[in-house]
Amino acid sequence: MTFLRNCWYFAAWADELGEGTPLSRRIIGEAILFWRHGRALHAVADSCPHRLAPLHMGQIEGETIRCGYHGLEFSGATGRCTLNPHGAITGALTIRAYPCVERHGIIWVWTGEAERADPTAIPDMGFIDRAAEHAFSKGYMHTAANHKLLEDNILDLSHADYLHPHTLGGGSITKTRAHVEERGDTVFVQWLSTGEPAIPIFRCEMPDPDMATDMWTEVLWHPDGVMLLRVGATPEGKPREDGVDTWNAHIMTPETEGTTHYFYCNSRTYRTDDAAFNAAMAAGLRQAFETEDKPMIEAQQRALGATDLFDRKPALLSIDNGSTRARRIHARLLAEERTADASPSLSAPA
Amino acid sequence: MTFLRNCWYFAAWADELGEGTPLSRRIIGEAILFWRHGRALHAVADSCPHRLAPLHMGQIEGETIRCGYHGLEFSGATGRCTLNPHGAITGALTIRAYPCVERHGIIWVWTGEAERADPTAIPDMGFIDRAAEHAFSKGYMHTAANHKLLEDNILDLSHADYLHPHTLGGGSITKTRAHVEERGDTVFVQWLSTGEPAIPIFRCEMPDPDMATDMWTEVLWHPDGVMLLRVGATPEGKPREDGVDTWNAHIMTPETEGTTHYFYCNSRTYRTDDAAFNAAMAAGLRQAFETEDKPMIEAQQRALGATDLFDRKPALLSIDNGSTRARRIHARLLAEERTADASPSLSAPA
Amino acid sequence: MTFLRNCWYFAAWADELGEGTPLSRRIIGEAILFWRHGRALHAVADSCPHRLAPLHMGQIEGETIRCGYHGLEFSGATGRCTLNPHGAITGALTIRAYPCVERHGIIWVWTGEAERADPTAIPDMGFIDRAAEHAFSKGYMHTAANHKLLEDNILDLSHADYLHPHTLGGGSITKTRAHVEERGDTVFVQWLSTGEPAIPIFRCEMPDPDMATDMWTEVLWHPDGVMLLRVGATPEGKPREDGVDTWNAHIMTPETEGTTHYFYCNSRTYRTDDAAFNAAMAAGLRQAFETEDKPMIEAQQRALGATDLFDRKPALLSIDNGSTRARRIHARLLAEERTADASPSLSAPA
Repeated sequence: MTFLRNCWYFAAWADELGEGTPLSRRIIGEAILFWRHGRALHAVADSCPHRLAPLHMGQIEGETIRCGYHGLEFSGATGRCTLNPHGAITGALTIRAYPCVERHGIIWVWTGEAERADPTAIPDMGFIDRAAEHAFSKGYMHTAANHKLLEDNILDLSHADYLHPHTLGGGSITKTRAHVEERGDTVFVQWLSTGEPAIPIFRCEMPDPDMATDMWTEVLWHPDGVMLLRVGATPEGKPREDGVDTWNAHIMTPETEGTTHYFYCNSRTYRTDDAAFNAAMAAGLRQAFETEDKPMIEAQQRALGATDLFDRKPALLSIDNGSTRARRIHARLLAEERTADASPSLSAPA
Repeated sequence: MTFLRNCWYFAAWADELGEGTPLSRRIIGEAILFWRHGRALHAVADSCPHRLAPLHMGQIEGETIRCGYHGLEFSGATGRCTLNPHGAITGALTIRAYPCVERHGIIWVWTGEAERADPTAIPDMGFIDRAAEHAFSKGYMHTAANHKLLEDNILDLSHADYLHPHTLGGGSITKTRAHVEERGDTVFVQWLSTGEPAIPIFRCEMPDPDMATDMWTEVLWHPDGVMLLRVGATPEGKPREDGVDTWNAHIMTPETEGTTHYFYCNSRTYRTDDAAFNAAMAAGLRQAFETEDKPMIEAQQRALGATDLFDRKPALLSIDNGSTRARRIHARLLAEERTADASPSLSAPA
Repeated sequence: MTFLRNCWYFAAWADELGEGTPLSRRIIGEAILFWRHGRALHAVADSCPHRLAPLHMGQIEGETIRCGYHGLEFSGATGRCTLNPHGAITGALTIRAYPCVERHGIIWVWTGEAERADPTAIPDMGFIDRAAEHAFSKGYMHTAANHKLLEDNILDLSHADYLHPHTLGGGSITKTRAHVEERGDTVFVQWLSTGEPAIPIFRCEMPDPDMATDMWTEVLWHPDGVMLLRVGATPEGKPREDGVDTWNAHIMTPETEGTTHYFYCNSRTYRTDDAAFNAAMAAGLRQAFETEDKPMIEAQQRALGATDLFDRKPALLSIDNGSTRARRIHARLLAEERTADASPSLSAPA
């Protein structure tokens, strides 16, 4: 097991989960069934304790899920069996219920010890709540690669100059040395360039497309796999407010060791009422992610097979600074969880 | 190896094997080639001893199979090489010939020691021979699940109330405590209900669809995987002969650890001349098995992966009584085969 | 690893590699990228040392390949990094460059120690260079079988009598005892028949199709997997020049343990200006290889799974003499490579 358990994971966009449309999604290897009942959200193990039938093949009735195989019913709130048509309800007839909350239009699930689930630990993504309707887009991309390869990709945005040269890159990141900083358990990476023309998608927003600009590209990584990005440009010497600015999130939720749920969104401060521009921007980003990032990273994963990148002794470069720090923090947190698991219980008698 | 060897396995419906149309089917992991020659049936290892070419890629000529790769010929009756175009016939050029008989419109193959193959040990399925043309239907369903999961499914028919509520189930089995009885190496499970309306497929056969009935559902399990079912209903208090009655067989022949050949048939005592009704009944059963049982059990298998259900510590219920007994008998017979394999030969000198 | 390394492997037909169309092909398990630049041929590891991105997803520019992920550039001639946009060029930023030459319209790659790569060791296939335009055809067939099974197939051409009875076989090989001879590290197998009618594809070339002929079928096997075949027929008692003669090559280049690149070609001494006949001959050979050899050998491989044929104790026949000798030579050469790998360096101090 190489996944952090005591984490809030991005399970789904909130609108993936309509009333009466349950969703089964595997997260850190565990099959979890999500559904809504009124204002309540439920997340339980998608497996009947009787014979391991997947519960999503059963029926949701309010806060209850009924197994489609032999009719056992379970509470979404507690995981306890509420009806056994064939006999007594015993303690063994309990399924795991996961803490689950909705924040920023996102369903978050906690896969660790329930008593440690604190929703205030969810990274602040308030920019989503504040975004104007036509200044926001989002997406989901199932990817056949380990989540770390996908996080590495965002923590080193120099790749945009080569993989997305006509849209998101243009050479300015490569020319800029990243500022990398650990802030507690998060990693902040910042590229500030000056005197360069804006990247392609911003060029037409400048007074003159070829003019010199100041650009900022900032990534804040939270364990595990939650990354907030700010990217913008302004005419050289002008304040950020005079230019264009975007807030983005890229979130990688591990499905299995070799597959990842990749969620992303984009909001911006310009042309905020332009629905057509918004649709074009959404399509352009989707195309970059699906036809440029995804094939490259999935090919990397195929080359790695079941091995980890670092076991293959890659020739690391300065651009890998941010991703290497994030991997180290992840490794430390993982080791701490294992130590805690191996420790005697605090409540054990002396 | 978790399969019984000293068993007659249901290899195929007899009409799957026309004159001159050989059939290759994997049974308990072994590739076996079946063909007919006149009144004789042949079953041999589907593998040339020379270079392991599959013999089904060769040519059948009477009682002989000729390898399509280098022309070696083998007798279907004995497995001995009858022609080696390239040199002498040695003992190494022998393939395994399996005892094979036709009973009840079924091809049975014996996978154990040939000298122990006794056709009288084949379960009596005479109801097939006696069935009227328009009162009988049968089918075959390849299923991606271990045979034990499929046997469990039939040995606990309470599942019909949840998986087939509009056809085969209706709640009466769940309300009835099963009578479970071991009879030698077989397991008999019986549900007798009274005062309940008939299950959906029988309802229109009653004088009044909603009237109270007596119903019987009986399963007799033989190792390994042969199950005979009798299911019927009659107006409450009337003899069985006044109602409707069906005889059915569900037979699970292991292909591999994770896949099974599922054969089934149904005969009935009513509307025995009604070809249209017979076709509708056949289609209804096929739909229930293919769209309700098969997806659920294959999903169970996917959830189990390479593990066995009992290694996953399922929360067993009273309804698992029959299947648990059948699994225990299977385990005991398997252990006995292993002990016999490990014992010194009875004919060894003192 | 069961592959010889110090070998020239047939990587591609030369015309598979046009200017500006790189080719990525896995050979003895290694992903290799081939391209042309003017008269130069390049072959390098298809994997960036930075993060293992496949280089074929990048851009070829002359003798340089640029990684599509982060822009590192490598020389096709030396494998050295020629541009690192993100910092210093270190020794770790080097990819393996493979010796690579073009001979007889074929791209050959050397997978062993570069200093031992001697192009004069490539088997002489000058018949390809001398073949008239309309007396030559060639093909490529990806095959899901270990290369040894494919080599065995050619080293025992008696299979033609059974697998290709209406084209390449007719019974004469089976009636003839092969002369088998080891010549250094090569194996020569020869079948000479007399008094038999010609094989089907030669029959119409004889003065009378049913007349008695002298026929020759000769295979010269080179390690690893390069086989040259000469097959012809002449009226009984006449010199070879009075009949029809063909030169052929069948070359098996291991892709992985279970898959092989199968290359073949055919040239002939008759009807050398007949384009329509040439096309029909090409189509006939392709059909025999693709619909008769390939399915049989892939079925053999499926029956073997991950095991080797010889671990399954096949009942070898006299016809396996040639292939058994070739397998032994291969095993000896493999052992010699391992011994050399394990030996102290010759230049080590005493």
